[in-house]
Amino acid sequence: MTDNAPTSRTHPRTPLTPLTLLGTGAMGTALARVWLAAGHPVTVWNRTPARAEPLAAEGATVAVSAAEAVAASRLVIACLLDDASVGEALDAADLTGRDLVNLTTGTPAQGRARAAWAQERGARFLDAGIMAVPPMIGAAGSGAYVFYSGSAALFEEHRDTLAVPAGTSYVGADPGFAALHDVALLSAMGGMFAGITHAFALIRREDIAPKDFAPLLQGWLTAMAPMVHTAADQLESGDYGKDVVSNLAMQVAGNATLLRTAEEQGVSTELLTPYMALMERRLADGHGHEDTTGLVDLLIEGP
Amino acid sequence: MTDNAPTSRTHPRTPLTPLTLLGTGAMGTALARVWLAAGHPVTVWNRTPARAEPLAAEGATVAVSAAEAVAASRLVIACLLDDASVGEALDAADLTGRDLVNLTTGTPAQGRARAAWAQERGARFLDAGIMAVPPMIGAAGSGAYVFYSGSAALFEEHRDTLAVPAGTSYVGADPGFAALHDVALLSAMGGMFAGITHAFALIRREDIAPKDFAPLLQGWLTAMAPMVHTAADQLESGDYGKDVVSNLAMQVAGNATLLRTAEEQGVSTELLTPYMALMERRLADGHGHEDTTGLVDLLIEGP
Ligand SMILES: NC(=O)c1ccc[n+]([C@@H]2O[C@H](COP(=O)([O-])OP(=O)(O)OC[C@H]3O[C@@H](n4cnc5c(N)ncnc54)[C@H](OP(=O)(O)O)[C@@H]3O)[C@@H](O)[C@H]2O)c1
Ligand SMILES: NC(=O)c1ccc[n+]([C@@H]2O[C@H](COP(=O)([O-])OP(=O)(O)OC[C@H]3O[C@@H](n4cnc5c(N)ncnc54)[C@H](OP(=O)(O)O)[C@@H]3O)[C@@H](O)[C@H]2O)c1
Repeated sequence: MTDNAPTSRTHPRTPLTPLTLLGTGAMGTALARVWLAAGHPVTVWNRTPARAEPLAAEGATVAVSAAEAVAASRLVIACLLDDASVGEALDAADLTGRDLVNLTTGTPAQGRARAAWAQERGARFLDAGIMAVPPMIGAAGSGAYVFYSGSAALFEEHRDTLAVPAGTSYVGADPGFAALHDVALLSAMGGMFAGITHAFALIRREDIAPKDFAPLLQGWLTAMAPMVHTAADQLESGDYGKDVVSNLAMQVAGNATLLRTAEEQGVSTELLTPYMALMERRLADGHGHEDTTGLVDLLIEGP
Repeated sequence: MTDNAPTSRTHPRTPLTPLTLLGTGAMGTALARVWLAAGHPVTVWNRTPARAEPLAAEGATVAVSAAEAVAASRLVIACLLDDASVGEALDAADLTGRDLVNLTTGTPAQGRARAAWAQERGARFLDAGIMAVPPMIGAAGSGAYVFYSGSAALFEEHRDTLAVPAGTSYVGADPGFAALHDVALLSAMGGMFAGITHAFALIRREDIAPKDFAPLLQGWLTAMAPMVHTAADQLESGDYGKDVVSNLAMQVAGNATLLRTAEEQGVSTELLTPYMALMERRLADGHGHEDTTGLVDLLIEGP
């Protein structure tokens, strides 16, 4: 097996791993198409059968029940709405000896519980978090990839098959880690988009074209993103006063200009204030000479 | 004049523009050093004279008052704490015929008011916003640059001199635009750092090394930053339902997983919730099929 799909489906150089895909929603359909095009024998099942029909025309075998779909291939991939739907769909299936890969978005605790549940049923288990939207699946250069965690043996055995629709990133044996990485990146992106929303609001009523402003915004965020490495070093060493270029006290002083500008421009400060409040708490605790990295600890609750 | 500084200060090929710099704090000192090294005659003044002393050894002329410093060069650059300190420092100076470039951070309204104030005193005026920290000034490849707005004639005449310590970006005749661009980018960065802070908090108690996680975070944020172009297109057209890949309704549903994960990991959701609340308001207004770009309008207050 190789990372490159054979060009012909009818004469593959080596037999490609058959697989079962549960769930042919937007994401499941995109995945199935790429595996089919690469020449993998694919069995699909969807709760609402009509949604699986188009894939039959592309060469998929459509199973009438999830149990039948699971019986068809050792490698079983679930891409359903949420964790509860995985439990429901697989309730009557025999998972003994199966390799279950769960591409359904969930939390770390759901990933861990689902791993224990699968193991009790005799299956190896890999949880996953998809860092892509459906149009990126199978698209060369799209940057799409999937976090995997759980059974390293399962991952190693099927990594070439898993690599067909998107890049793979195995992040550890703890089945909660794929979801944790997924959610951590999505949360960071939410913060970035909140900042972007505020920035566009500031210029909205001025004679500044959003399309002239966008490259400046992208360039600046891209240039500042490498600061995560400084933060990572500081978190590893525990020394938040190392390599500081713009300390917390200076940044808190600068926040006044950000707030005042928002007020001048008639823009709500609601997206800015929680982070600023956290900075002020940390400053009041006597950390003004340090970097902002210590704010991480303020977010962590309990002992 | 060229963008490249002559190698010898004593025999410049063409005489370089003399300039006066008011304020030799961290940023002013970094700037003065680069202009001096490039061969510009530099007159400096600082309220606390001791802080200007080190520059004398590097070839600067130290003036005893701001008025004397202003009298020394037609091009006068202010890099002081805040807008009020600019007014104070220049109170007794004769600005007639001067070209005043204000590198002091302020708000758009302060930039506009300071422009009117300078014009009344017979000076041309350029406001500025420095997108760099002092160590980036004059450092090749650092990406440091400065937004300028106000007198286009002043900018054109002095652009080579201004380009010596950092890149230049002229953003319009409105003297408020440099500050507006500056603050908009800083605000967006604040959002990104808030998201990064939350992401690091999520993994803080797990066996995940921050230095392994940081490249994933940087890669993801860098890959997602180009979404600003989609947002800009939508803001220009007013059609927020164009080219949607992940609509608001789906994102609101996904937020539940982000919040639940934070709770599982014992991490406060305070940095995530304001943006999520805005998304929910927009969804309730019936925009679930659109992109999140419409959130920009929700931030803008008044009619
Ligand atoms: N789309 C994206 O951009 C994206 C990106 C990253 C990750 N993901 C994740 O990928 C997974 C699938 O997303 P999607 O976009 O394909 O969603 P979707 O288009 O809404 O499809 C949902 C799928 O789940 C099935 N389902 C729902 N409840 C079920 C139940 N109780 N029992 C059995 N099947 C059930 C649906 O079957 P019916 O057809 O019968 O309703 C459908 O196949 C989700 O976990 C999502 O978070 C999606
Ligand atoms: N440092 C950065 O990372 C950075 C980045 C971008 C933009 N900037 C902007 O650059 C400007 C200067 O920053 P900095 O880092 O150089 O600050 P700084 O090291 O604190 O220096 C402040 C300067 O302002 C002077 N000053 C304060 N109040 C004054 C008054 N009432 N009258 C006359 N002079 C007064 C100080 O003089 P004394 O020595 O007498 O106190 C000193 O020269 C600020 O607007 C800042 O926002 C800085």
